[in-house]
Amino acid sequence: MSKFRLHLCAGLAVLALTGQAAAATPPKAAPAAAAQVPPLFAATLAKSRAFVDPQLRKTIDVPVPADAGGGYTHERHKDNYRLIYEAGMLYRQTGDKAYADLVKRVLLDYAKLYPSLPPHPKRANQKPGRLFWQVLNDSVWLVNSIQGYEAVKDAIPATDRATIEAGVFRPMAAFLSTGSASTFDSIHNHGTWALAAVGMTGYAIGDQGLVKQALYGLDGSGKSGFYRQLDELFSPDGYYAEGPYYQRYALSPFLLFAQSIQRHEPSRKILDYRDGVLRKAVYANLQQSYAGLLFPINDAIRDKGIDTPELVHGVAVTYAVTHDPALLSIAVQQNAVVLSPEGLEVAAAIARGEAKPFPFASMKLRDGAKGDKGALVILRSGPKAKDQALVFKATSQGMGHGHFDKLSWQFYDAGREVLTDYGAARFLNVEAKAGGRYLPENDSWAQQTVSHNTLVVDEKSQFGADADIGEAHWPTILAFDVKDGIQMTAATIEDAWPGVRYRRAMALINRPETGRPIVLDLVRAEGGGKHRFDLPLHYAGQIVDSGLKFQGGTSELKPLGKAYGYQHLWDRGRAPVKGAGRVAWFNEGRFYDYVFASTDVDQAVLTELGANDPDYNLRNERAVILRGDERDGFVLAGVLEAHGSYSAAEEYARDTIAAVKAVERVSENGADLVTIRLSSGKTLTIGVSWDPDPAKRHRVMTPGGAYAWTGFSGLAVREQ
Amino acid sequence: MSKFRLHLCAGLAVLALTGQAAAATPPKAAPAAAAQVPPLFAATLAKSRAFVDPQLRKTIDVPVPADAGGGYTHERHKDNYRLIYEAGMLYRQTGDKAYADLVKRVLLDYAKLYPSLPPHPKRANQKPGRLFWQVLNDSVWLVNSIQGYEAVKDAIPATDRATIEAGVFRPMAAFLSTGSASTFDSIHNHGTWALAAVGMTGYAIGDQGLVKQALYGLDGSGKSGFYRQLDELFSPDGYYAEGPYYQRYALSPFLLFAQSIQRHEPSRKILDYRDGVLRKAVYANLQQSYAGLLFPINDAIRDKGIDTPELVHGVAVTYAVTHDPALLSIAVQQNAVVLSPEGLEVAAAIARGEAKPFPFASMKLRDGAKGDKGALVILRSGPKAKDQALVFKATSQGMGHGHFDKLSWQFYDAGREVLTDYGAARFLNVEAKAGGRYLPENDSWAQQTVSHNTLVVDEKSQFGADADIGEAHWPTILAFDVKDGIQMTAATIEDAWPGVRYRRAMALINRPETGRPIVLDLVRAEGGGKHRFDLPLHYAGQIVDSGLKFQGGTSELKPLGKAYGYQHLWDRGRAPVKGAGRVAWFNEGRFYDYVFASTDVDQAVLTELGANDPDYNLRNERAVILRGDERDGFVLAGVLEAHGSYSAAEEYARDTIAAVKAVERVSENGADLVTIRLSSGKTLTIGVSWDPDPAKRHRVMTPGGAYAWTGFSGLAVREQ
Repeated sequence: MSKFRLHLCAGLAVLALTGQAAAATPPKAAPAAAAQVPPLFAATLAKSRAFVDPQLRKTIDVPVPADAGGGYTHERHKDNYRLIYEAGMLYRQTGDKAYADLVKRVLLDYAKLYPSLPPHPKRANQKPGRLFWQVLNDSVWLVNSIQGYEAVKDAIPATDRATIEAGVFRPMAAFLSTGSASTFDSIHNHGTWALAAVGMTGYAIGDQGLVKQALYGLDGSGKSGFYRQLDELFSPDGYYAEGPYYQRYALSPFLLFAQSIQRHEPSRKILDYRDGVLRKAVYANLQQSYAGLLFPINDAIRDKGIDTPELVHGVAVTYAVTHDPALLSIAVQQNAVVLSPEGLEVAAAIARGEAKPFPFASMKLRDGAKGDKGALVILRSGPKAKDQALVFKATSQGMGHGHFDKLSWQFYDAGREVLTDYGAARFLNVEAKAGGRYLPENDSWAQQTVSHNTLVVDEKSQFGADADIGEAHWPTILAFDVKDGIQMTAATIEDAWPGVRYRRAMALINRPETGRPIVLDLVRAEGGGKHRFDLPLHYAGQIVDSGLKFQGGTSELKPLGKAYGYQHLWDRGRAPVKGAGRVAWFNEGRFYDYVFASTDVDQAVLTELGANDPDYNLRNERAVILRGDERDGFVLAGVLEAHGSYSAAEEYARDTIAAVKAVERVSENGADLVTIRLSSGKTLTIGVSWDPDPAKRHRVMTPGGAYAWTGFSGLAVREQ
Repeated sequence: MSKFRLHLCAGLAVLALTGQAAAATPPKAAPAAAAQVPPLFAATLAKSRAFVDPQLRKTIDVPVPADAGGGYTHERHKDNYRLIYEAGMLYRQTGDKAYADLVKRVLLDYAKLYPSLPPHPKRANQKPGRLFWQVLNDSVWLVNSIQGYEAVKDAIPATDRATIEAGVFRPMAAFLSTGSASTFDSIHNHGTWALAAVGMTGYAIGDQGLVKQALYGLDGSGKSGFYRQLDELFSPDGYYAEGPYYQRYALSPFLLFAQSIQRHEPSRKILDYRDGVLRKAVYANLQQSYAGLLFPINDAIRDKGIDTPELVHGVAVTYAVTHDPALLSIAVQQNAVVLSPEGLEVAAAIARGEAKPFPFASMKLRDGAKGDKGALVILRSGPKAKDQALVFKATSQGMGHGHFDKLSWQFYDAGREVLTDYGAARFLNVEAKAGGRYLPENDSWAQQTVSHNTLVVDEKSQFGADADIGEAHWPTILAFDVKDGIQMTAATIEDAWPGVRYRRAMALINRPETGRPIVLDLVRAEGGGKHRFDLPLHYAGQIVDSGLKFQGGTSELKPLGKAYGYQHLWDRGRAPVKGAGRVAWFNEGRFYDYVFASTDVDQAVLTELGANDPDYNLRNERAVILRGDERDGFVLAGVLEAHGSYSAAEEYARDTIAAVKAVERVSENGADLVTIRLSSGKTLTIGVSWDPDPAKRHRVMTPGGAYAWTGFSGLAVREQ
């Protein structure tokens, strides 16, 4: 499935946003008096100068391309585009001609070198570039360099300009467009980089033909090109099918080209195109984070946060249009701005104290170009960064970087992960771990269903772990609404396993009965014969006694299974379950209780990750799996409660007793009624009809009387 | 060995420091205008008011003692002493008589209850109290309550004062002194609490007899009492044998009583006694921390930090005497001050911007009352909080809370733990984990030698894990000096295993050859016949390939051994070693390489904690053990290098290649010469003679020539 993967160029793509004024030449800021420079901008300026200034008097090597990623010529050409870009920005900011001279000097060397270059000698499976082993890196080179050139070109003599444009920019734009037609016209992130490079070059050197190719594709029909990519690559809500980790990378060329269009052809109102989809994508990316880190869904590096350079640019471009003060608080967290007029504007507004907290919100981010391929649902207990967040993943597969994790969830509380997603099995840039590439365990563990907080049927991953089949199926969202203090969402997926219908409803409940928010989890699977059902909870923390009697896993450990990720789980002990149970753990001052009722669970299995891991690539994380065997179906109602506070400094533990005592569930005509019994003696009764019709009345009979509600779900009221 | 344990009262002992003016009545601060109150003090005041004010008009229950720790009457009497103390402090600060009335009201109820009380009905192994199940808690009650009373007594009518003193304070002081003679006269932390309570009561109610008992013991001879405790319980450097975790608790009664003495009898200059040992103890406690957390040596709760209330008081009392601005930066980190004139002074100085960074330093903290029982050595690469720190534990056993960890080390870098100490196996205050008490795994794992970064002989703990034997032996410090950019320390311990002499030298080297600090580790053990030697490194992070070929531990796990902690280690795989090797791991953006040379190592064993842990009490931490079998001795030279920086946000990894390429060692006449070969081609040659004589010249012959140095150790120079 690696052919679907978006290949990151090995290293940092330095990005720039140019001014959005109508002038065809970027506005040159007057050299600001030091005292007036807002602190965040001053810090960015100083950092950039520390990189560029020592090189002002040096000879900059422009070597004949020879090496693949990581090698000397590769890294040198990367450093060079960063230098061209940053020197250009510094010239614009300071007016110091030395920066313009540096850009000119380096580009004249490229003009000498480039025309003679053959396809890169280290080309491999990827489409080859000329400066780099894959053409993607050539696109990134041009996106950066053209910005540096555009910023200084007024300060370069006309003959040198002609030499540079004829020697580098025109042939490179030709190579990336007509010379790499299949990439350029593809509806894919690599295509975005190529057309951004070509389009930005067109504006910078005054070639409207290049601009038109970039906007409408090589044949000018609009079947490819930038508009088409804006139509296809984001959902109407700004969701990107590969998830937030790749979204922030994919956003870069979109934002950069959009800024260029806005500056040269403001009448296109590109940032308003498709109901402002680009701005939505920036907000959607920020919303898909907790405590500064992106939700680690799909192939994600877990420590990637909203401080990534791409989102620093995202904030700058979006703020320039919306002046939304909430974006300023994101910039404060990022502790960085872009070296551009927009970055200056952000820094100045922060210095004026205009930042407002970013309002994290519950939302449904529809997936698919038309918004019809499921959704990522985020439920939050409040707008603050440390309020609880529940992430319900009912999206499409997300191509080769997607995981087989439909209807899985993650949960965050008090600034920490509670129920986790493993993310990608990869140590990015760590040479000693498979050269920093994806590890074999990414396929064998991280992408498999059992590595997620979702149901597993017969110890097999969804769609048999076949990404092509996965790509052809997606969940249907059944509910997303708020009523009576209950934020409810639900989805269904068919045929993730042959003949099995799998539905899940999840709610974040914040009502006076409990005194704190709790999570309702209602799982239903049926069809396709007798099955083994496994429902894992990947928890962070240390298990505490909650009545389950675990046996085994003390004097010997064996893998829990043979394939689909089970081969990586050590069986740390099993406890019999009869109808109901409670799993509890403790983590950094908070207690977590998952109380469940299910006649389809026989046992709880504790696992630890690390079996069949000869290179010690896996983290030793723990899970509990609720397992039922030989069942026609699987129905479970669970409640997760976060409670307690614990201070090591002051040696106290408070609220260590859970509010939720038990969960019960009865069904009638396919509707479920869940009763949550509280320690206080109160109860909370919630009906889930699974029927999206908002007007339909539902009724379930219990030994204690009949309960009724209206719509998909609701607080159920006892009939008199 | 539990009889040696210092028993914490279950919960927070609220402490107070009273003014140090000479007046017998504490100074009453003029109610400060709100605008003048420094922010940190205002926050403390607000927090205290939030606790006390709602109780001003309530009836405060003073129940007949019935319950053990955690039960209602236990918690109520704890709340009551906190209330008496805090109301007293609020009265002194605000002059609001309502606070004095509350104190009077509650104490009159105690005066009614106390005289009739028998020994506590829930008394167990501990010496029983009357209000609480153990007498220690009664002492803590009195230490707190007497401070509240002293602060308000001028506002209480004389008849009520007489009733209170006759009903509570006099009989309670009698019970804690003559009535609990063995505790009162013991040279032990429980004794300190008792005599502080009695002495402070003496001052407050004007009974010099009580004061004298507290200062010089019941018989007045000085063989016990406060002065004797100051002589015996701290080393001359302010080290406390149980380690920093219990030190900060033990400090409380010392500091409180000292403040009381200073106020009533300033001529005693108690804070200067024994060369200012109490102030030294506060500094020593602060120095035994990294990134805000105390070094987790011995039975320590790992998340206990310098923000503990005891050290908030420690800062206040010490600052009042020294006005050391570095203490202010500690208070800023603590984010709290004491509700006292001293706390106000600290907060005001902070508000005036007087705080200076606390200078963390390399130091040798001698152990033992005379400073002759080994030492805890701290080597730091610089004074900043995130500079590297190496902790070398060559102290005495530390009584029942001590671990069998002589000559072990811990290492910190970039704000994080690199080589770890497990601390105590205990979840303090977590009811579901053995009621918050020490877990069985504290004995079976945490205290054992193999759970530390020190040598294990024949899979047995030092002193056969017998604390009484351990208490009778301690290491001898062989070196602690700085020369040529090499901070060197070394120690020896005899008979930790019968007939075995175990020596270790450790150095933090910061020289231009390496470009970054590195650690030298030189281990020598010999005697007592043929042995199995195990040298564990408990590392934090993920192992990366460094040339060792590990086999096994993938499809089945078995415990590594049967006893002394080995029964808790899963054998995760073994690699053969021939003469030298490298172990490398990665953690949060940094790389760590331990390169070693030893002809006494046959194999490297990877382990993971968690075997024979039926209640899932252990954290799943990892170690590598360097093992040699059937050896007459064990000699190893190792170098630990921390290198690399990694940014997930900006996607770069730098300095990922270690500077140290190899380590070599040759010996002559008992002296060791270690050559560190660097990737740059340079070498660094260090001689360790093991001979403390600073003037003696040493010489070791190598194939490349003879090298010489002077003293215990030094940069060795090749002879011409």
